[in-house]
Amino acid sequence: MSDAPIEFFFDFNSPYGYIAAHKIGEITAAHDRSVDWKPFLLGAVFKVTGAQPLPLVPMKGEYARHDFARSARFHGVTYNPPESFPFSPTAASRAVYWAKRVGRAGEMTLALYNAALGAGQDIAAPEAVVSVAAAAGFDGDAVAAGIQNPTIKEELKAVTDDAIAREIFGSPFMIVDGEAFWGADRLDMVERWLETGGW
Amino acid sequence: MSDAPIEFFFDFNSPYGYIAAHKIGEITAAHDRSVDWKPFLLGAVFKVTGAQPLPLVPMKGEYARHDFARSARFHGVTYNPPESFPFSPTAASRAVYWAKRVGRAGEMTLALYNAALGAGQDIAAPEAVVSVAAAAGFDGDAVAAGIQNPTIKEELKAVTDDAIAREIFGSPFMIVDGEAFWGADRLDMVERWLETGGW
Repeated sequence: MSDAPIEFFFDFNSPYGYIAAHKIGEITAAHDRSVDWKPFLLGAVFKVTGAQPLPLVPMKGEYARHDFARSARFHGVTYNPPESFPFSPTAASRAVYWAKRVGRAGEMTLALYNAALGAGQDIAAPEAVVSVAAAAGFDGDAVAAGIQNPTIKEELKAVTDDAIAREIFGSPFMIVDGEAFWGADRLDMVERWLETGGW
Repeated sequence: MSDAPIEFFFDFNSPYGYIAAHKIGEITAAHDRSVDWKPFLLGAVFKVTGAQPLPLVPMKGEYARHDFARSARFHGVTYNPPESFPFSPTAASRAVYWAKRVGRAGEMTLALYNAALGAGQDIAAPEAVVSVAAAAGFDGDAVAAGIQNPTIKEELKAVTDDAIAREIFGSPFMIVDGEAFWGADRLDMVERWLETGGW
């Protein structure tokens, strides 16, 4: 029985990533597995695939905006996106890699996602990220330094390059023992895969 | 409480439409609702949206092929697509509109879908459709005439035009009392919507 963490790739702009972030911890914990939180820059992937953010795709845009809110209610997650959307997820993503070093990546992910997609805050600027992190009990000065840390900057770039190399083309993208699942609507499959090891 | 049928838009090339076609009847029947089977030509919609069939989209193609088979197994549906894929769904779609006139549209849909995506048969040609229909207990001559019937040809065109006008951009696309759900992975939401009338 594998005890490897579940890789959870997500972009801070992704409403389905936000919904899944609220669910994945409980699902994995029920099977004594942990989550490896991996924010990445989906915009960089879209440059390779030629894909666009869902709200900009012809016909799909209106459906997607409706489905974001409906899916969040379905899963019991408060959804209230910021006006400036999509926003740069770079500072928030780096803050998660900083938090990973102190074993609090999941906590940082949820604090920032809740601020941006649950409370409509603009978290594009490093100062906004630091403020959200400080309100969530993190050391603001340490987070601010982490966002500017060259090694952490490089880590976000490396994870994004790895996502492209591994054809991780959307958010959320969850890897369970090598099996890839795309979308909050695959959480039921992730759960069954953890239970059964495949079908 | 509405007793309107659930509109079930699908393209015969769509594996997710195939999976949902196997599930939608049971789900709606549990709530004393019926299915309005609406095959349409998704290729005509893609001409408007600029979208491509999933297997042809960069990076998504390989994932999609894997997920088609995995999703079918997850839902307990036999999946074995034909070699010539995608194929022209025109004759098969017309056969469903013929069958609708004798109250057997669901039966015809499943017979043709099972032949094509369950048994790997090529059902592009009218003769192939007639053969599948006859094996399923339909009057082959009547089906052959139906496929060439100008009113039925027009009906398929009209439903496809209606789909474009209503921004029905994928398959399966299910409308429950005006609420649109896209994808086999929205069957759980369709079920809850039927139970609760919305959330």
